[in-house]
Amino acid sequence: MAFPYPFSAVARDARPSPIRELFKVIGRPDMISLAGGLPDPTAFPVDPLMECTEVLREDAGTALQYGATEGFGPLVEWIAERVAERTGARVEPANVLVTTGSQQVMDLLARTLLDPGDVVIVEAPTYPGALHTFRNVGARFAAVPCDEHGMQVEALDAVIQGVRHDTGSLPKLVYTIVNFSNPSGACLAEVRRRRLIELAASSGIPVLEDDPYGDLRYVGEPLRPLYGREGAAGVVHAGSFSKILAPGVRLAWAVGDAELIRGMAILKQGVDLCTSTLDQVLVAEYCRRGHLDRHLERMRDHYRVKRDAMAEALAHYLGGSPANWHDPDGGFFFWLDLGEDAGPVFDRALVERVAFLPGRVFFPAAEETVGESLPGDRFARLCFTFASPAEIETGCGRLARALSGGGRGGSV
Amino acid sequence: MAFPYPFSAVARDARPSPIRELFKVIGRPDMISLAGGLPDPTAFPVDPLMECTEVLREDAGTALQYGATEGFGPLVEWIAERVAERTGARVEPANVLVTTGSQQVMDLLARTLLDPGDVVIVEAPTYPGALHTFRNVGARFAAVPCDEHGMQVEALDAVIQGVRHDTGSLPKLVYTIVNFSNPSGACLAEVRRRRLIELAASSGIPVLEDDPYGDLRYVGEPLRPLYGREGAAGVVHAGSFSKILAPGVRLAWAVGDAELIRGMAILKQGVDLCTSTLDQVLVAEYCRRGHLDRHLERMRDHYRVKRDAMAEALAHYLGGSPANWHDPDGGFFFWLDLGEDAGPVFDRALVERVAFLPGRVFFPAAEETVGESLPGDRFARLCFTFASPAEIETGCGRLARALSGGGRGGSV
Repeated sequence: MAFPYPFSAVARDARPSPIRELFKVIGRPDMISLAGGLPDPTAFPVDPLMECTEVLREDAGTALQYGATEGFGPLVEWIAERVAERTGARVEPANVLVTTGSQQVMDLLARTLLDPGDVVIVEAPTYPGALHTFRNVGARFAAVPCDEHGMQVEALDAVIQGVRHDTGSLPKLVYTIVNFSNPSGACLAEVRRRRLIELAASSGIPVLEDDPYGDLRYVGEPLRPLYGREGAAGVVHAGSFSKILAPGVRLAWAVGDAELIRGMAILKQGVDLCTSTLDQVLVAEYCRRGHLDRHLERMRDHYRVKRDAMAEALAHYLGGSPANWHDPDGGFFFWLDLGEDAGPVFDRALVERVAFLPGRVFFPAAEETVGESLPGDRFARLCFTFASPAEIETGCGRLARALSGGGRGGSV
Repeated sequence: MAFPYPFSAVARDARPSPIRELFKVIGRPDMISLAGGLPDPTAFPVDPLMECTEVLREDAGTALQYGATEGFGPLVEWIAERVAERTGARVEPANVLVTTGSQQVMDLLARTLLDPGDVVIVEAPTYPGALHTFRNVGARFAAVPCDEHGMQVEALDAVIQGVRHDTGSLPKLVYTIVNFSNPSGACLAEVRRRRLIELAASSGIPVLEDDPYGDLRYVGEPLRPLYGREGAAGVVHAGSFSKILAPGVRLAWAVGDAELIRGMAILKQGVDLCTSTLDQVLVAEYCRRGHLDRHLERMRDHYRVKRDAMAEALAHYLGGSPANWHDPDGGFFFWLDLGEDAGPVFDRALVERVAFLPGRVFFPAAEETVGESLPGDRFARLCFTFASPAEIETGCGRLARALSGGGRGGSV
């Protein structure tokens, strides 16, 4: 006999992640999946991490005990130094919060800044997990289109003014994935970075700079993050160990204004008290021993090979099709405009035994969007980090056969 | 130059945990702390846990990768079996959600059930972390008094009707720590368990049965949990590895109605995606090898000695004072009615170099309470699990000297 649970407004509106639903149909053993956004498990640095577990024994009284909500001291200091080095900013421990994945940065920041009905500006396309988190606090969205150079910041002021016109209030937050965005793979151009900071500062709107992929650049030189630049006091920087080390340790961080970080930490006390101390002590030791930078060198080479494999395979099999795309300089993803509705292509691709993610899930829905909502129907996200180069080659051939023109699909 | 962050209503109202603020004055090296609610770090099962890390190497592709939001399969199954065994209920994996500490059970359940302004019925006294979590979603409280047999369920119906009268709505949740409550140490009596279930069922109010201490009974026989009893469809059961194994692995669980668990899991996707896979794989292996039950046997003996040490020391030093208390049958805490305002006693106790937690933090404040608010000024919580028996003895002597009557304080 079911109990009549009185669900909250948020729970009544909640929708399961469409990506997770898709995975239920993707799991066939002979399927080549380019769908998930997973790091390559064969490249996890198992040996050095396992060596570092000896610190858990040596310092078990710390590693197995409750820790500070703000994070394990040595890890906080490592993050502060790292972000200072990357950004040129002065970063104190009071500017750092260790979180249970960067999903928690979004959740804590959303709850610290947003009341139900508030508007968040997102890129279109953007990370669906961020949309989910912002929905969890009852937020609405305004969408700024993207191209191969990231958010079209030229359109941002009009979007801000549109929200003000339509709702009577300014948007409360700009959410941007600056480097090798999930899903678009785009890296925000330097001139747009400057303009974004100017606009955010002049309008008083905070910016969440989500940067899980910044260390995974395979081509060209890194651009300076938003955080720490002149005028960027409203920028909160989020980084993560999930893509550069391993997502199984749920470890990420927020770096920002000390008062804001304190507000997020106070909320976190009631959310999970603290992030896994065991994970923190282990990863702090891994970093202290200098393993991370050596691992990153290897990972850039490892993933560059896969990126090149997908670039070649797409050019080969889809070169003559209406599909078009830009090869990303880093990150995990190719983002294709298929030139046709991705839904039927997805269905045919499953028959061909290759899976990708249809683009629609990366766009806020029309009914939750203030102002113009952008259609994502023609897009496809392909992940190149999980599959092997051979699977990528075969998978792209199968994808070509799933296009309505048939492309020049390869052998199965 | 500070950025004018537009804080949310929840963040504007948030107060840092008063306990954490107290710890800033408690940290003197010659202080005997009976204040924190920490497990004994010298008793963590370091060797067997470290042996189990070999599974991390063997199954690194799982242990270091993203996992299911609902939890790591083998751990989910272990929890389902465990709770079925304890409760007599049929527990399927769909009834289980692995969480990042039981704090997250509260957070997810609160967000799934509560809208701002909704009322949660709590025991007075209750766990301050729960008050914090419910405040984070804008909840208000109604308080039911406790005695040495737990919540005075006889008063519950009047409290429910009072909330309905004062607010026009029923309370949305009853929060109860059934076994060896933090802070009261009380175990809910059998007759009250039955009556609580009847009342919750007839009024349609869900119950969160928080049970982190149930396996830590030092005297007498366990009582059957609320979950799984006839008529208890509205009960959600929360358990945790924090007190029975180690809090540094942030691992706990909710067990309840499958639809409710699914609602909580959907929210969790936007909160932290999943709980640390590394922690889950490690602890699942630890349990699979049968270590936990052996460890629990040892811990019950270990903590019983400490409980007895505090019982004796309190009887000896405070026996002639106006203070009174009941020796707990399990858990972590003694709860003393000092017979005078605990604030000045706390100040004098710090001078005497012993720390406890003043009782007021365990009661919701008057301004957030619907109906009668209960004063906690005269109470003190003493933790017996962290300090050694010798420290407990010395600490209780010091405490006696801090009472206004002076008790018969021991040597320093």
